[in-house]
Amino acid sequence: MFTEVIQPRFSETDALGHINNTVVAVWFEACRTPIFQIFTPELDLKRWPLIVASIAVDFKAQLHYGSEVEVRSWISRIGNSSFEVTQQAWQHGHCCAEGKAALVHFDYQLQKAKALSPALKAALEQHTL
Amino acid sequence: MFTEVIQPRFSETDALGHINNTVVAVWFEACRTPIFQIFTPELDLKRWPLIVASIAVDFKAQLHYGSEVEVRSWISRIGNSSFEVTQQAWQHGHCCAEGKAALVHFDYQLQKAKALSPALKAALEQHTL
Amino acid sequence: MFTEVIQPRFSETDALGHINNTVVAVWFEACRTPIFQIFTPELDLKRWPLIVASIAVDFKAQLHYGSEVEVRSWISRIGNSSFEVTQQAWQHGHCCAEGKAALVHFDYQLQKAKALSPALKAALEQHTL
Amino acid sequence: MFTEVIQPRFSETDALGHINNTVVAVWFEACRTPIFQIFTPELDLKRWPLIVASIAVDFKAQLHYGSEVEVRSWISRIGNSSFEVTQQAWQHGHCCAEGKAALVHFDYQLQKAKALSPALKAALEQHTL
Repeated sequence: MFTEVIQPRFSETDALGHINNTVVAVWFEACRTPIFQIFTPELDLKRWPLIVASIAVDFKAQLHYGSEVEVRSWISRIGNSSFEVTQQAWQHGHCCAEGKAALVHFDYQLQKAKALSPALKAALEQHTL
Repeated sequence: MFTEVIQPRFSETDALGHINNTVVAVWFEACRTPIFQIFTPELDLKRWPLIVASIAVDFKAQLHYGSEVEVRSWISRIGNSSFEVTQQAWQHGHCCAEGKAALVHFDYQLQKAKALSPALKAALEQHTL
Repeated sequence: MFTEVIQPRFSETDALGHINNTVVAVWFEACRTPIFQIFTPELDLKRWPLIVASIAVDFKAQLHYGSEVEVRSWISRIGNSSFEVTQQAWQHGHCCAEGKAALVHFDYQLQKAKALSPALKAALEQHTL
Repeated sequence: MFTEVIQPRFSETDALGHINNTVVAVWFEACRTPIFQIFTPELDLKRWPLIVASIAVDFKAQLHYGSEVEVRSWISRIGNSSFEVTQQAWQHGHCCAEGKAALVHFDYQLQKAKALSPALKAALEQHTL
């Protein structure tokens, strides 16, 4: 499991006074950086190896500006060329949002999915719950 | 069905050269404005009547800067106090992303869900597919 | 002068109930698209010809969700390799924000500024106030 | 001087492969949180005491995803009811962007500026360069 700390930003609030729901998807992507580094340790944008197939977020409680948020991320499914990341945003000891992202190992040159090698699968498996 | 046109913004691209996946969630929320107006025609932020319970987006094709995107939105489920919006982002004649948002009729004062009145249900029903 | 219409998005509000100040810089960049097209009519991201040297925005009145915003953009200075765009955001008949962006004609390959050709200068001059 | 560390987010890059210019304004606002706390230690959004009068950013070098950014912030001018914050974004030992924000001590109820008390001025003065 990866754990990252986010400081909510004033600009991430909305008129309801809490963090806008779309921001959680941004935080979750930001906190997938250590997972990206399994595929490209130097985060090489010119040979990016992943594409997002789907995202989903359930909102359980309102998130607020002014207190840090802990984002927990782990691999929850490993397929042939794709895998799933589950993520939670915790604030004040509560899990306020939980999401899943399906990522595909992808060759942007050929514009098609690429099988996950045994080495990649093993590396991902180290970060299951 | 509601149809809105989005002009993708340069700042909405990412290093892969297409629209970042988190932006689609932002567009979809933006295009729910006519649905918000069923509940608050004047979009009164001080008595906002809805909360987001969940969002999900499937990415089917890459979206690009430089061509307009048409977002289609309709009501796909009506429950007791909640309902679901399905939305699609079309570019160049292709459906590039499809998402669902579950919205709850909500009283922020009491911090609890509120039943949808028959009038609200009827109004939502007019925007099913 | 270029005129673009922006529909403020719910996610662009902040906890103060109006549009967050950082969003105006995003709108202004979005509304420079027709100016980008003077340099690259097809908006070719692989050979992008401009870089931003500076931006500045003065906030004159609060901008709100729920009413459209008209952004007016024009060329306010033409230099040797750079030029300045002035932009205003109007809502309800008021100029609520005014900004300037200094853009440099730039060769990303060589990582250096490029002189504006007489043809480009003439094209920019057509969009001064 | 206040120092905050930002982890650039994948979604903050743009098609040019570096951090989009509008993001720096977002980071700078995020890093004004400790300055906001001089006015409202508990960051009380219901009685927010400041409004932004202007922002400006000079871009000196491209900022990249994959390495942390240090944002340095200090008070560079103290007026009667307003003050100026100067901020710099450093990456890999280089100052890549510098900005200024003019903030006004503001009463949202009365919709007008409020003089800075001697205590507030003294508190701000502690964070000049």
